[in-house]
Amino acid sequence: MPEINVALLGYKFMGKAHSNAYRQVGHFFPSKFTPRLRVICGRDRAAVEAAARQFGWEEVETDWRKVIERKDIDVVDVSTPGHVHAAQAIAAAEAGKHIICEKPLANTLADAQAMLKAVEKAGVKHMLMHNYRKIPAVVFAKRLVEDGKLGDIYHYHGAYLQDWIMDPNFPLVWRLEKKYAGSGALGDIGSHAADLARYLNSEVDSVVGHMTTFIKERPLPGAGAGAWGAKGSQGKGKVTVDDDTNFLARFKNGSAGVFESSRFCGGRRNYNTFQMYGSKGSIAFNLERMNELEFYDRTDPQAEQAYKTIMVTESVHPYVAAWWPPGHIIGYEHTFVHAVHDFLMALEKDTLPSPNFTDGVKNQAILDAVERSAKSGKWEKVKP
Amino acid sequence: MPEINVALLGYKFMGKAHSNAYRQVGHFFPSKFTPRLRVICGRDRAAVEAAARQFGWEEVETDWRKVIERKDIDVVDVSTPGHVHAAQAIAAAEAGKHIICEKPLANTLADAQAMLKAVEKAGVKHMLMHNYRKIPAVVFAKRLVEDGKLGDIYHYHGAYLQDWIMDPNFPLVWRLEKKYAGSGALGDIGSHAADLARYLNSEVDSVVGHMTTFIKERPLPGAGAGAWGAKGSQGKGKVTVDDDTNFLARFKNGSAGVFESSRFCGGRRNYNTFQMYGSKGSIAFNLERMNELEFYDRTDPQAEQAYKTIMVTESVHPYVAAWWPPGHIIGYEHTFVHAVHDFLMALEKDTLPSPNFTDGVKNQAILDAVERSAKSGKWEKVKP
Amino acid sequence: MPEINVALLGYKFMGKAHSNAYRQVGHFFPSKFTPRLRVICGRDRAAVEAAARQFGWEEVETDWRKVIERKDIDVVDVSTPGHVHAAQAIAAAEAGKHIICEKPLANTLADAQAMLKAVEKAGVKHMLMHNYRKIPAVVFAKRLVEDGKLGDIYHYHGAYLQDWIMDPNFPLVWRLEKKYAGSGALGDIGSHAADLARYLNSEVDSVVGHMTTFIKERPLPGAGAGAWGAKGSQGKGKVTVDDDTNFLARFKNGSAGVFESSRFCGGRRNYNTFQMYGSKGSIAFNLERMNELEFYDRTDPQAEQAYKTIMVTESVHPYVAAWWPPGHIIGYEHTFVHAVHDFLMALEKDTLPSPNFTDGVKNQAILDAVERSAKSGKWEKVKP
Amino acid sequence: MPEINVALLGYKFMGKAHSNAYRQVGHFFPSKFTPRLRVICGRDRAAVEAAARQFGWEEVETDWRKVIERKDIDVVDVSTPGHVHAAQAIAAAEAGKHIICEKPLANTLADAQAMLKAVEKAGVKHMLMHNYRKIPAVVFAKRLVEDGKLGDIYHYHGAYLQDWIMDPNFPLVWRLEKKYAGSGALGDIGSHAADLARYLNSEVDSVVGHMTTFIKERPLPGAGAGAWGAKGSQGKGKVTVDDDTNFLARFKNGSAGVFESSRFCGGRRNYNTFQMYGSKGSIAFNLERMNELEFYDRTDPQAEQAYKTIMVTESVHPYVAAWWPPGHIIGYEHTFVHAVHDFLMALEKDTLPSPNFTDGVKNQAILDAVERSAKSGKWEKVKP
Repeated sequence: MPEINVALLGYKFMGKAHSNAYRQVGHFFPSKFTPRLRVICGRDRAAVEAAARQFGWEEVETDWRKVIERKDIDVVDVSTPGHVHAAQAIAAAEAGKHIICEKPLANTLADAQAMLKAVEKAGVKHMLMHNYRKIPAVVFAKRLVEDGKLGDIYHYHGAYLQDWIMDPNFPLVWRLEKKYAGSGALGDIGSHAADLARYLNSEVDSVVGHMTTFIKERPLPGAGAGAWGAKGSQGKGKVTVDDDTNFLARFKNGSAGVFESSRFCGGRRNYNTFQMYGSKGSIAFNLERMNELEFYDRTDPQAEQAYKTIMVTESVHPYVAAWWPPGHIIGYEHTFVHAVHDFLMALEKDTLPSPNFTDGVKNQAILDAVERSAKSGKWEKVKP
Repeated sequence: MPEINVALLGYKFMGKAHSNAYRQVGHFFPSKFTPRLRVICGRDRAAVEAAARQFGWEEVETDWRKVIERKDIDVVDVSTPGHVHAAQAIAAAEAGKHIICEKPLANTLADAQAMLKAVEKAGVKHMLMHNYRKIPAVVFAKRLVEDGKLGDIYHYHGAYLQDWIMDPNFPLVWRLEKKYAGSGALGDIGSHAADLARYLNSEVDSVVGHMTTFIKERPLPGAGAGAWGAKGSQGKGKVTVDDDTNFLARFKNGSAGVFESSRFCGGRRNYNTFQMYGSKGSIAFNLERMNELEFYDRTDPQAEQAYKTIMVTESVHPYVAAWWPPGHIIGYEHTFVHAVHDFLMALEKDTLPSPNFTDGVKNQAILDAVERSAKSGKWEKVKP
Repeated sequence: MPEINVALLGYKFMGKAHSNAYRQVGHFFPSKFTPRLRVICGRDRAAVEAAARQFGWEEVETDWRKVIERKDIDVVDVSTPGHVHAAQAIAAAEAGKHIICEKPLANTLADAQAMLKAVEKAGVKHMLMHNYRKIPAVVFAKRLVEDGKLGDIYHYHGAYLQDWIMDPNFPLVWRLEKKYAGSGALGDIGSHAADLARYLNSEVDSVVGHMTTFIKERPLPGAGAGAWGAKGSQGKGKVTVDDDTNFLARFKNGSAGVFESSRFCGGRRNYNTFQMYGSKGSIAFNLERMNELEFYDRTDPQAEQAYKTIMVTESVHPYVAAWWPPGHIIGYEHTFVHAVHDFLMALEKDTLPSPNFTDGVKNQAILDAVERSAKSGKWEKVKP
Repeated sequence: MPEINVALLGYKFMGKAHSNAYRQVGHFFPSKFTPRLRVICGRDRAAVEAAARQFGWEEVETDWRKVIERKDIDVVDVSTPGHVHAAQAIAAAEAGKHIICEKPLANTLADAQAMLKAVEKAGVKHMLMHNYRKIPAVVFAKRLVEDGKLGDIYHYHGAYLQDWIMDPNFPLVWRLEKKYAGSGALGDIGSHAADLARYLNSEVDSVVGHMTTFIKERPLPGAGAGAWGAKGSQGKGKVTVDDDTNFLARFKNGSAGVFESSRFCGGRRNYNTFQMYGSKGSIAFNLERMNELEFYDRTDPQAEQAYKTIMVTESVHPYVAAWWPPGHIIGYEHTFVHAVHDFLMALEKDTLPSPNFTDGVKNQAILDAVERSAKSGKWEKVKP
């Protein structure tokens, strides 16, 4: 099986998840191409070397430009904070590398558009790691929608709620600074909710939203503090992103949309949920129980109409046959394995992976309209 | 025990529920005053006579003005469609009657304000039948909030979803005509969601919303068709109310609000839900499981932090001791019994019942702002 | 509408629930006969008078034999502790009264058989108040079974778990004394589980069980202590009934049965549950969410096979049309209203109500076999 | 890091799961020892070679005795059907290999005892792969029990229900033949339920049970049919194991036990559940939602007593810190990773892994007593 040489930029939470996907994909989804974990890159050499050892990478690099220059690299995986996505992805495209990029594609719509232009010009494969599209229950939901089981869609609600920064002493990590993260709840988790809505329902015509920051100052992280909350002690800094962003949407298919994203909802650890209501059926999903999909079929006999809690763990469900027998659940990291499998299949069949940078631009356009609306106080068109 | 002579205007769904409350209250909540079901009133004599027999009323009347003129009536219960509330309640107030009025208080803010003015001028007791405030789980939620168990509130989501008019052949009953009902999903069920938010969280500063009508024409109801869907056959008429209304809110306490109301959410039979997130705790409720309240306490040890599903059926919970032992659940109509009990206690103690017409005006002001916003496309202040 | 004159023996928990049923039935299920709450009977005159006032009975009596002698009584309702059921029911039968009797029918199989013989000899109507058979979800479950939706039954699990006597200081009320209650968890709640199994599945061929008493001594109740736990202070007495009884069953239809009953399962307030598994489908029920029935249909397409949570609140579901619109739930006491309605319909149609004393004997035969097995340590036939 | 050379006997369902664990453990739980996937063994060379490629093994062997003779193997993993466990494990012990053995340890108590004797004599490390002990929620449950959060235990219910052989045309695979599998539901899944009860609650004193086979004949599997159901077509054969086995237990700590195991419970894909009730608290678990643990604390204030649904995905929960942030769930195969990690730590610290062959003997003694009881029709002591 031909090897695909991968270079990974970034080595923390996403680096760990992507590394696992490259290692595991061939053991469960054997296909023509096998990823080879060639080089992992980050600025802190000691930390990257530790990551390389643990995650199984052959080599270490501290300068991402050198990585992209290497002739022996086929795929560049951009798993860095959002503010460097554009530079890295555009350079990789210009070097003719295929690209897998973490979401959100960029911190601004302009950057996202430039990235799309670059990959299209270079003719490389590009994938956006909206990994929740790769959950069996979500793909199965998509199949129900496409099979017409929901009929015409009337109402869509997406909510992605977390609680990991509720403590006012949680430090000012990069995800809380606009210059690195672009936005807060909106870009980090609201973007997932928007992406699932585009995937399952329809493009968005216009939005109106509001953004709130509850804790306006936080302790600066100590030297070496990690992204996930080592508590700092060197004074305070200003939080420059939103803690909580909600918006209404008008979808192009005529349905009404309601979106919530918040990092201040206690007890919601990773509550990425949607409910979708159509003339023939409804579905509901919650990432915290990601092996399940609720489905209501209005065409059932009246006395038996009800939400079913489908365990999406049957061999006939998407991706499942590669794993375990019915009822043996899978977890978070499996979504990345599925995504990498899809990417490899796109290479094999010479098609464009999905979702890709086009989705990234469209997603960014929604976030952009929400931010404009939060300032203007009125409905804003999603454009272009 | 002195009797309180009640006259009931209206005899359908709400008439049935209110009648039950008057009959039952003394058997479970014995107090100084006992309601006497004196006279029930409606325009269709045969139908009202049948209702009187079934619901236990002594007399029947077809002209509500005559009822209000009677000297032997202490309380007038207004359970008619919204467009006649104002005339009936104002006349009752002027006649010195205490009033229990179904929600929404009126179809317009101006009417609601006139009604409040009338009862205040007359000095009569007035209650607004937002019965869901009288659910033990909801009152218990209020107690948790007041005890500070939730801390500062960050985020509130209220959704009242139903599905009873999804069939395009469901007829154009009065609830689908603006001239009778004022609005559709917004006034009928969104008003409940708004009331619970005001009760549990805070007054609303401003809103932005959108209203959608999916089925724009419906069959006219046949002669004698009931409110709940006898299918008509005499041509079609225009639906003049909203099927689906959603809005964002800024609460006066600084929290962010998200509201959904829809009659087009398949499988949601009576899905009146809220989730409320604060710095110390969170709660969640669903009317379809109205004997339960979910509660998350951020002050629990980290390893044990989780949502509890509290069965609000203990003798220490509000209203419960009057009913059955723990775990023996109560149902929908019990909320009206509790409301009437509270009304009788207000008579006994000479206090104002809660909620009352002041709440009705404030609720109507929110609905009014949502309607203005749906037209203006921007945030609107809730006023006055 | 002709009145049916009812006399009620007993005035505590069950007296309250039965009284409510007699008062309410005509308001929701109008039929030929209307119950008249003629006389309520208990030994403590002051307490019975208070009950009569609250529950709506016309007269009070302290000697049950006098009640039964009265010519103007049509129905005697036996809601007393189990050790007096036989004497009261047999006397009532001999006096030609129809009888509604609380469960368990008697404390011994011999008593139950004598009671059945008496009512059959007298030719009176007799009903056993296994009220949980009258839950819409349970009757709907029965309908699914009868329609063959479950196919051949393989496995049945019934568990009725509570926790109200876990506190070792809870006093030795009559329900904890064998001479009054016959048995503990077995007769009080296990009998419900057994009755539902007979109703839904099959007669029982044989059983093997074990009975455990965890708290062997308890405080004696103070003078005037109620059945539900006023704490006493006059020394200790021996608990003579089981706290926890479980048994295996072989059903006559070949299915395997597993039963649990316990009053020592913390957090299970009123956890009367069953799961029933057949070749074509499965169902599951929990009394704490008594408006719901879970149903799994093996004939669904594989990808959509799943448990549905049916809200049994549709007008097409048993008893529901008489109450409220879909999604408006009912509670515990409604089961008694349904039972009284069925009783009145049996009078109207001159049929035998169901369940009745024959069911009581068969139920008692199961309990008897469990008790024998707990002593013998082996499987015992249910006889006769 | 020193390598531990592993040989795997068996290459199907369990072979796949164990292989994954050896590959993954070092990437998430770095420790002194790293497993090296040296050789995989099975009788069908082509199939084993395919497995080796997919699962990542260096070499292939078809004769297990040759594998065991190899000097370069440190650990022999026995993942074959039960009837060869004893021969393989005893030979491996005699060759001085450490052993990881799939459950049940053997098909008979005598075999299990011989295996234990062999490993003890040889002084090798031995582990029994009761992988469900390695679920974070289960280990956390154990911690709650050990911390006294449940108090004295009164009642334990374990049920492991599946439905994968309900189709009468499902073929007679080895798991349905006594000579290979020892027993059916009892040994395959009931043994898991018994193991969890021993782990969490107490040793078992005595049991009474019944075993049922609903489908007594099945199609013979075609040549090359797999374990999981390729449908055969060469006549029919007799099913010699139980489809459904239930038993009552008396635990040595005085608590009452109820156990169900069945492969005929439609809709229960992998429903390994337990509920455990003590004087201070209760817990409940369901493998289908294996990232959650329900916990009820009787010491909470009365109004707040309720089951919590704890997401056992916090860094303070067992094993979790090695994986992902809170709310990012793990799946079935992670349990094997944890087990292998524990095994490696036992090597590092020179302690005995847990569970091990002693647990296997004790578990087998329970199964043996259940089988004896199913024949004798009475309670049987678990011995020795």
